Formats: sequence, structure tokens, C-alpha cells
Amino acid sequence: MEELLGLREGSSGKPVTLQELWGPCPRIRRGIRRGLEWLKERLFRVGEDWYFLMALGVLMALISYAMNFAIGRVVRAHKWLYTEVGDGHLLRFLSWTVYPVALLSFSSGFSQSITPFSGGSGLPELKTMLSGVVLEDYLDIKNFGAKVVGLSCTLATGSTIFLGKVGPFVHLSVMIAAYLGRVRTKTMGESENKAKEIEMLAAAAAVGVATVFAAPFSGVLFSIEVMSSHFSVWNYWRGFFAATCGAFMFRLLAVFNSEQETITSIYKTRFRVDVPFDLPEIFFFVALGAICGVLSCAYLFCQRNFLRFIKTNRYTSKLLATSKPLYAALAALILASITYPPGVGRFMASRLSMAEHLRSLFDNNSWALMTRNSSPPWPAEPDPQNLWYEWYHPRFTIFGTLAFFLVMKFWMLILATTIPMPAGYFMPIFIIGAAIGRLLGEALSVAFPEGIVAGGEVNPIMPGGYALAGAAAFSGAVTHTISTALLAFELTGQIVHALPVLMAVLAANVISQNCQPSFYDGTIMAKKLPYLPWIRGRKIGSYPVTVEHFMNGTLTTLAKDMPLEEVIKAVTSTDVAQFPLVETKESQTLVGIVERTHLVQALQTEPASWAPGQQRFLQDILAGGCPTQPVTLQLSPETSLYQTHSLFELLTLQTLFVTSRGRAVGSVSWIELKKAISTLINPPAPK
Amino acid sequence: MEELLGLREGSSGKPVTLQELWGPCPRIRRGIRRGLEWLKERLFRVGEDWYFLMALGVLMALISYAMNFAIGRVVRAHKWLYTEVGDGHLLRFLSWTVYPVALLSFSSGFSQSITPFSGGSGLPELKTMLSGVVLEDYLDIKNFGAKVVGLSCTLATGSTIFLGKVGPFVHLSVMIAAYLGRVRTKTMGESENKAKEIEMLAAAAAVGVATVFAAPFSGVLFSIEVMSSHFSVWNYWRGFFAATCGAFMFRLLAVFNSEQETITSIYKTRFRVDVPFDLPEIFFFVALGAICGVLSCAYLFCQRNFLRFIKTNRYTSKLLATSKPLYAALAALILASITYPPGVGRFMASRLSMAEHLRSLFDNNSWALMTRNSSPPWPAEPDPQNLWYEWYHPRFTIFGTLAFFLVMKFWMLILATTIPMPAGYFMPIFIIGAAIGRLLGEALSVAFPEGIVAGGEVNPIMPGGYALAGAAAFSGAVTHTISTALLAFELTGQIVHALPVLMAVLAANVISQNCQPSFYDGTIMAKKLPYLPWIRGRKIGSYPVTVEHFMNGTLTTLAKDMPLEEVIKAVTSTDVAQFPLVETKESQTLVGIVERTHLVQALQTEPASWAPGQQRFLQDILAGGCPTQPVTLQLSPETSLYQTHSLFELLTLQTLFVTSRGRAVGSVSWIELKKAISTLINPPAPK
Repeated sequence: MEELLGLREGSSGKPVTLQELWGPCPRIRRGIRRGLEWLKERLFRVGEDWYFLMALGVLMALISYAMNFAIGRVVRAHKWLYTEVGDGHLLRFLSWTVYPVALLSFSSGFSQSITPFSGGSGLPELKTMLSGVVLEDYLDIKNFGAKVVGLSCTLATGSTIFLGKVGPFVHLSVMIAAYLGRVRTKTMGESENKAKEIEMLAAAAAVGVATVFAAPFSGVLFSIEVMSSHFSVWNYWRGFFAATCGAFMFRLLAVFNSEQETITSIYKTRFRVDVPFDLPEIFFFVALGAICGVLSCAYLFCQRNFLRFIKTNRYTSKLLATSKPLYAALAALILASITYPPGVGRFMASRLSMAEHLRSLFDNNSWALMTRNSSPPWPAEPDPQNLWYEWYHPRFTIFGTLAFFLVMKFWMLILATTIPMPAGYFMPIFIIGAAIGRLLGEALSVAFPEGIVAGGEVNPIMPGGYALAGAAAFSGAVTHTISTALLAFELTGQIVHALPVLMAVLAANVISQNCQPSFYDGTIMAKKLPYLPWIRGRKIGSYPVTVEHFMNGTLTTLAKDMPLEEVIKAVTSTDVAQFPLVETKESQTLVGIVERTHLVQALQTEPASWAPGQQRFLQDILAGGCPTQPVTLQLSPETSLYQTHSLFELLTLQTLFVTSRGRAVGSVSWIELKKAISTLINPPAPK
Repeated sequence: MEELLGLREGSSGKPVTLQELWGPCPRIRRGIRRGLEWLKERLFRVGEDWYFLMALGVLMALISYAMNFAIGRVVRAHKWLYTEVGDGHLLRFLSWTVYPVALLSFSSGFSQSITPFSGGSGLPELKTMLSGVVLEDYLDIKNFGAKVVGLSCTLATGSTIFLGKVGPFVHLSVMIAAYLGRVRTKTMGESENKAKEIEMLAAAAAVGVATVFAAPFSGVLFSIEVMSSHFSVWNYWRGFFAATCGAFMFRLLAVFNSEQETITSIYKTRFRVDVPFDLPEIFFFVALGAICGVLSCAYLFCQRNFLRFIKTNRYTSKLLATSKPLYAALAALILASITYPPGVGRFMASRLSMAEHLRSLFDNNSWALMTRNSSPPWPAEPDPQNLWYEWYHPRFTIFGTLAFFLVMKFWMLILATTIPMPAGYFMPIFIIGAAIGRLLGEALSVAFPEGIVAGGEVNPIMPGGYALAGAAAFSGAVTHTISTALLAFELTGQIVHALPVLMAVLAANVISQNCQPSFYDGTIMAKKLPYLPWIRGRKIGSYPVTVEHFMNGTLTTLAKDMPLEEVIKAVTSTDVAQFPLVETKESQTLVGIVERTHLVQALQTEPASWAPGQQRFLQDILAGGCPTQPVTLQLSPETSLYQTHSLFELLTLQTLFVTSRGRAVGSVSWIELKKAISTLINPPAPK
């Protein structure tokens, strides 16, 4: 600019001000001003929702990072204590076990004392909520503190208790979104809107997953697969935006804190890129998927039944009802004793943290081949460069330790899931899957020590690839999702095993989806939360079944010409939340909906003005101010079950009234739908 | 087994047969038999749909591979001709241009003579079809041959005409799915079912994308984003299964044909993994996204207007109407002349094929830094090891060639899209995006030659990463999708740039979605296909608008007690396809729907039996066998626009009747909805 001004000065002889320079071009100036105004308006119009989502992502990333940071400190303190306490076995054992016992009983006691909703992962409840059911107080912000503190304590126990943070983080994220939404509604003076609220919550769920794994793609897809059965592309974009903001912020903090040099994936792997696997290996990948599918069925079955056993058994149910911290402490004591490193823990690499477990299992070398001739040492502390030393035992070999790890963690995880405290169950399942894959991979690398001959070079089989596929397949089978394959790639920063991993996940899903409900569905059933089953396969006779076959035909309608006594009788005889309002008792023409609460309120205020002897009708009450709602959607007796199901799922409905030629003839709610679908799936046995 | 038998023999003294061995365990035998039967039944129950999807995937992979193989041969023949024809410029020019001119005019003439639907990518039409509109004959199998042959010819012109195959492949895949579906319906005797059919077509679309790029994840997501606005998780799983089968088969064939050593991604990159980019570079990635967004708007704008110009201009419209092959030949001549390598083509790397363009642009070295001190040679033929030599010109430098390439390809692609022949437009857009990114990346590598200092090592900036981000962002902006980011990773087999690429794609999408309709929506508008606009942002006043504000209130109802003369008058006065049937003229209670075709048929057969003087009513006709349909779903005047929109989108509806207290008061179809939404978006100016 200076140069330009100088040039001007030289040619005309006197200095030119900026005003003069631009003065002659009023059109350009106006154009620029208009452009800026347009931009401003556009930014604010697009605004709101996007700003909201960005704030949500950034906030969750901060929380996730801060929690990781705090947990890291506590874990380091535990490690320090354990190493500094001396060589006496009793002291070491105590220092190893007391820590998790104290943390877990505090976590359980603290969170349960604040809110009973804080236990478990929270995903099953969220799934129910996103389908439209209102669970009172579940998203209250006061649960937030309980969940954060409880989860931090749970995670600070490290690999002893072996639990993760995905589920609770999704819950936290949704809680914050609901809170921010309420704040926005209040400050902006917007009217509340349930549909929009649910959309925001769906995006928040994606943020939760994305800020834990720094994986926006799989965050969005995983949350969709777990939470919903239908979704709109618009929601998916929102989810992407929020998840990207969250994941970026989360990794940015790691860079700022000098943990990382740049933004990368969390569990970086170093798989060979040129020939990562040979073609025949695809068969083993699919077989691994099938194995994971079968094992996931076994896990889901055992888990559900053990949970039922704990709840029905006299001693445990009493213990759980009266003193949850004690139960948590006892369970923690069992788990911690088993993982005591100089004891049984020696055979299950229990000195590693969960992240180190995963990192070591994804190692690209074959341990079996490396330990054939020389046995690695068992260092005093895990060697960060050779984490896999922990998996080796001179007598057991790595096969023994891996198998032992799997067998023990299998029931230990089931035990851990029964402790009532905030905890996620995805990560342990992911690690167990990785161990399954590693075991198969190591076996293959021993079975085919000559490896893959390609292009004149000999490449050994990489068990790490199998660990990756196993992790994705097992976690996918347990949760009934496919996006775990993508998660595996985003976590490791490599996508060379794209097709084999995807095929393993599909194989695992085929088996588990056919045999067992998913982890979340199983929990929903165990907790008796309302849910709408799927019409699987869409062909088991769902098309010919229509509403008239399964609707609730005994409807308590309120006619406008009903005397008040009859209205009161009708209201007291049932406990439904909504009454269909019809024109007259004879015509039964549906004209609106009356909320029970409104009607009761109106009835209670009414009696004062009653003139004795004078007959009063419902229409007087309605005219007196009792609000009615219009019927926006009505079914016909001929609507198919499939269509009704889609409507309920998409529009997150609770109840719909059925009209035939204008007459209210019945109602359909979740309960009827569920019954109809379960009849379809398990037709009643002929008597 | 032998050993076991031997042991038995030894202990009892005489040989034991298998029968005897298993004889004593009838329970186990029965158990095994039952297990096998259960498995068999289960496989067949799951069956059908899955087998169908697998067959579809494998078939499409075979077609895709066969087509690639044939095209490869034709291209090689062209190359041979061009190199063998001698040094005379005229002969070389002719050999360069005649080939594409002949191929293109044949492609255009052949495919257009068989079916007028074969032009373009087919995606816009499919989008319309998947939303429930019936486009007659569009999925007829006879179009298949035309599209395959035409597309092969188009692609055989290579980078001269610069077109891809994604769109047509999706169309082909959907055609095959529709055909297989019809065959299945006939052989299995199933009743036709529109909802299920559409589900299958959606899965087929995913297969189309997946078999072109061998990218199952992005295949599914891209097809969802482009085709639908709502989708069910069940459909997404189907899509994954079919796409995985297709992608696996496609890559398997490459291995069998010894092109590849194992299953890998198509455009493998070799980006540095440790520090792929430095943190501040994120800013440039987002800026690149914004640039791509702006350029995509410019492209979409020019493309739409040029298409309109071609259609309205006197000469071109006449040419297109009468002799399409001539138009194609002329356009091909222009495009081929410009790309003639010793001429202008020298400055735009026109000797490379499209795959080589992409491979060279994703190169991980900085060309600008490599050519600072030494200039690479211009070999007689592109050097497969150093494809990027083609991008270098001693006087222009690589910046000049890249910029020139962009400017020229910009309008050349627009010209190419006007040629009526089967062709995909995704791939060229992807490559142009890569060139944009490469240009910025090279500029940055020159601006910051010291690169990234991390961990004591100096790493230069990788322009290839920018090319990747540019490709994803530009193609994402033009098509309004986010999954192009995932596609970029699946294509290159590396995911190290996960976050920056995703952020670039998001930035590009924010700009383009706010300013221009997507490529496909633009084409839908230009072709005047029916479509339902989105309610963007869900907040521009869509909630308070209800059906009564925009429904079509002038309804021609047919009452059961109508005399036949009146019925005939009503039928002849309008041309709607469905009439609402009401009980009586006074009550107007909706009881069913009569199809126009059925009614006309019934009316035409009726007169024979008419007794003169006897008044006949509609109910007689209905009793005489004219079929009516039940009303499965009805709107109320109070239903909100948003809810109606969701219903239409999810259930792929055409028309719904509006009833108030049972009376038919109006109807809502796409036309009304579209009008209502456009009024929302562009409120009428106050007069």
C-alpha cells in the first residue's frame, strides 16, 4: 500500500490520502460494504445451531482432556507408591489393592448418593430417550458432577478394574447439550421443540464418542448405529461438524501439552504397508470374525444371566440394595487381587495400562517368532519401547498368557459390569477382541513361519493386523455395529487392512445379530426400559398385518356432550395421560386431545362456580379454558404394521389414535406395537 | 481319528467301526443332526436378501473389472498408435484426435439411439426415483447394454475427454438390482412390494460406488448422502454387506490377474507417517477447504448456466436435437485438440491417464523444491516411476502448468458435461480438486522451505497431503457430501491426514451448501424432475406452518351416492390419478381411494348392462367390482409442515388426503409441499 501511495505521490506531486484514493469509486465501496453486511447476516443466520455444536464439541474435548490428565496423575501416583513401597509382598499387595478398592467404593458411593441414574454406561437409557421416551431427570445437570467424579475414580483404577469411558462420555455430552439447550431456550425466548431437541442430542452423542477416541467418522457412525434406527442426513452432518470440532480440540490440547508433536491418531500403529497381508489370509480374517461372533454371543449370554443372578440372588441383591460401596469394594478386591503383578497378574500383563494393552497388542512384530530362540527379560517396570515383554512368560509362552488373559478377563469384565458406578464397557471389549485376534495371529505366524512371499521378498505374517480385526469384530459383535471397523482405522491411523477388517466385522455381526440382542438392547431389557423392537428382515409377515389387528380397541373417549359426572368417572377409571375428545357420544368423531393433567386441573377449579341442580357438560369446562390439542396425525385400521412402526420410529411418537371414517375407534402405543412385533417374531404356539 | 480307532482296537482286541463308535451316543448324534438342521434353516431364513445382495456385489465387481480391462486394452492401442505413427505433426495430431472423436460420437449415437435415458451420470434421476417418484423404463434392463457400451467408449478416450464412471455405475448397479428383483419376484411368487424394492435399490447404489473405487465405507456413505435425506440403519447394513462383497471381488480380480500382489487400495500413497503435517498447517487446510468451496460455487454456477445456454441457444439446441453424434464429435474435437501433447497439452500433463493424474498429484515429494536447482527431463513417454515429470515445464514451472491445467479443465469439463452420453462427473471433479490442493501445497512448500522442525528432524511440507484434502473438499463441495473425505482415505490407503481433510471438507461444504444447489440437485432442477426441497436448518419458521395453510383445498371427491353422470363429469374434468371416495355427498366422510384407471375401466364396461331410465350410482359400480383402496394414513389440517415433510420423505409418498373430523377437506402432494417450502425459504415480497 505504501508503495502504491508513493507511486501516486510521485506522479501527481502531492500526497494522496486513503479517502481520496477510494473516493472516486463509490460503487466499489458500496459493494464491499454490502458484501460485508451480507456475510455478517449469513454468518448469523447459519449461526446459532452451528455455534452451539461447536461450543459443545470444544467443551467436551476440554472435559475429556482434563479428565485424562487428572487420571494420568492419579495412576502415576499409584505406580510410584507400588514401586517405592519396598519388596515386602504384603506391603506391595496392599498398595496394589487398597487403591482401587478405595477408589471404586468412593466412586460407587458418591455417584449413587447423588443420583441413582449415574450407574453403568448410560447408553441404553439414551437409546430409549432418543426414541422419544421421556426419562425424568436423566439429563439433569446435577447428575453431571456425580458422573464426572465417579467416572474419574473408576478410570483411575486403570487396568485393574479394566473399564472404559465411552458410554459415560456420551451421557455427559448429551447432558451438557440438554443443559445448553435449556439455557438457549430461556435466553433466546424460543419456544421449546421436542423434535429439534432430540436432533441436538443425537449430535451430542456423536461428540461423546469422538472426544474419547478423537475419531470423528466412527464417532458419528457408532452413535447412529447404537442410538437410532432411522436418521436424517441433516443430523448426520450436524454430528460430523460437532464431532470434528471435539476431536480437533481434544488432539490440539495434547499438542499444546507437548505430549504429541502434531495431531495424530491415539494408538498409532506401524504395520507394513507394501504387503500387509496375503490373499489367503482373508480366509483367516473371516474365520476370526466368526470366532469373535461366537465368543460375543457367549459373552452376552453370560453377562445377561450373571446380571440376572446378581439381582435375584438373596445375598447379592440385599448387598446391592443396602450398601453399594461395600459391594463395589468386595468386587474391586477380587479383581485387584487377581491382577497383582507378582501373583496371577504376571500371566496376564497386568502391569500395563489399558492404553498400553492396546498399543502392545497392535505391535507389528510376531512375538512367537521373536521368542523362539531367545526369551526376553521381565523388566522391573514395563519397558515403554517393548511393552510386549509383559506378555511373555518363559514357561507359559505368549500363547499361555494370551489365553489366560482372555479366560480371566472374560469373567472379570462380567463381574465388573455388575458394580453400580459410572463406567464404560466398550474399551475392555475392544481390548479383549484385540487379544483374541492376537492369539490367532500369533498361532498363524508360528504355523506359517515362512510368511508371505511376494515380489521376491519374504514378509512374515503380522499378528497385529489380526489384533486389529479381532478388536473391531468382537466389539462390533457385542454392540451390533459395523462402524467399529472404521474406529479401528481411525484409532491406529492406518487403513491398510480395510477389507479384511470389514469382512471380519461383518462375519461377527451376522452371527451375533442372529443369536443375541446387543449389549445395549440386553441392558434395556434387563432394566425393563421401554423400547421398540425392530421388524427384522422386513419379511416375516409384517406387511399384511394392519393396525386393526393389534390396536387397543377399548378406548375411553370423552364426548363434548358428556355430563361432568361421567367425565369424572371416566377420568378416575383409567390412568392414561391423554384422552381423545370426540364431538358427541353417538358420532364419536375425533376432534382433539385433552391432557389428563389439564383436565384434572380444570375439574378441580370448577366446582366452586357450580350452581346446584344445573347439569354441566364437558364442553363448558373446555370453554372455561381447559386447553385441547389438535390431532395432527391419525392412523386408519388399514394402516400396515410396517408403516406404523416407521412412523413411530421416525417421528418419535408415543401414542396415535386410530380413526375410521372420522370415528375414534382405537389407539396404538408402543405397548401394542411391541406386542404385535413380538407376536410376529414368536408366533403363539397353537393350543 | 485313525489314532483314536487304533487305541480302541488295542484295548478291546477287535476293530471298531465308526457306526459302533458313535452308536452308544444317540443323544450326541441327535444333537449334531438337530444343530445342522438348525444351521441349515437359519442360513435359508437369513438367506434370500443376503444372497441377493452378495450376487449383486459380485456381478457388479465383475462388470467393473471387465470394463476396466477392456478400456485398458483400447487405451493401450491408442498409445501404441500415437507413438508408432512417426514424427509428422499432422499424423500425430490426427492419431491423437480421431480416436476420441470416433469413440465419443459412437458412444453418443449408440446409447442415445437405444434409450434417451442413458445420457449423463444417472444419479439425479436415481435420487428422484429413490424418493418414490416412478420414472417409467428408467431401470429397464434394455438400457443396460446401451449404458455399458456407451460408457466403455467414453472412458476409452482416457484423459482427453476427462470423464469418470461413478454415476453410470450406480445406475447400472441399480438397473441390475431392479432386474434381479423382478426375476426373484416372478420365480419366488412373492408379491411386489415397493418399500422393499426401494431398500434394495438403495443398497445397489452403494454397490455401484464401492465397485468403482473398491471403497465400501465411502461407497455406502456417499450413496446415502447423495441419494437420500433419511435412511434406516438396517438399510445401511445391507449396503455395507453388498458393498463389501463388491469391493472385495473387484480387488480380488486384480490380484488374480497379477496386477497386484495382494488386496490394497487403488491409489496407494506414501505419505510420511510420523509427522505428516505440523499444527499450523491446519489453518492452510481449512483455507484450502474454503477456496475449494468458493471454486465449487463458481463451477456449479457456470455449469448450470452453460447447460441452460446450450439448451436455449438456437444453433446448439438444434444440433443437440437433430444430430447428437455430430455435437459429440465437435466437442470431442475441441477437447482433443487442446490436449494434443506437443501443443497446449504439454502444459497440462495431458499424456497422463486420469489414474496417473491422481497418482502423480498425490506424490509425497515437493516438486517445487525438487525443481529449484535441477530441471527434470521431458521423457518421450511418461515415466511410470516419475509421473510428475509431466507436470514440469522449464519456462512455466510447475505452478504455471498446474494453474493452466485448472483453468483449462474448468471449462473443458463444463463443455464435456453437455455431451449427451453415459459418463460420470465425479472423478474429474476429484482430480481438479487434487490439482487445486497441489497448487496450494507447492506454494506453501516454497514459502516455507525450512518445513516442519519436529523432534530435531526437519521435515518438508508435503504438497500431496494438500492434494488429498483439495480433492476431498472440492468433490465434497460440488456434490454436497462429507464422505468424500473418507473416500480419499480409502482410495489412498492412508488416514494420517484424517482431521485436516475432514476440516477442509466441512469448510468447503459450509460455503457451497449455503450458496449453490449441489451438482445433482442442480441437474434435477435443470431437467425439471420432481423433487422435494429440504427444510434447511429446521428453523426458518417451518414449525408454525400447518397443513391447512398450504393444502390443496379444491378436492374432487366422489361420493358413493353420486349419479353416474356426475361421476363421469368429475372424472373428465380433472386428470388426477386418485380420487378420494366419500360416504355421501353431504357427510364427505372419507372411506377410501379409487384409482382413476380402475374407475375408467369400470365405467367403460358398465354401459352395456344399463337399463334406460334407471338411475345408477357410483356405489353400484363399486359393488360391480371396481376395486378401492383403504386410506392408510391421513393428515389433519393441524399437522405441521415439518411433520408432513418428514412423512413424505420417509415413507416415499406421493399424495396424502387431509381430513378434518372425518371429512375429506383437501390433499397434499409434492407440489403443495414444494410450494410451501419455497415460500418459507423465499417469502413473497410484500406488495
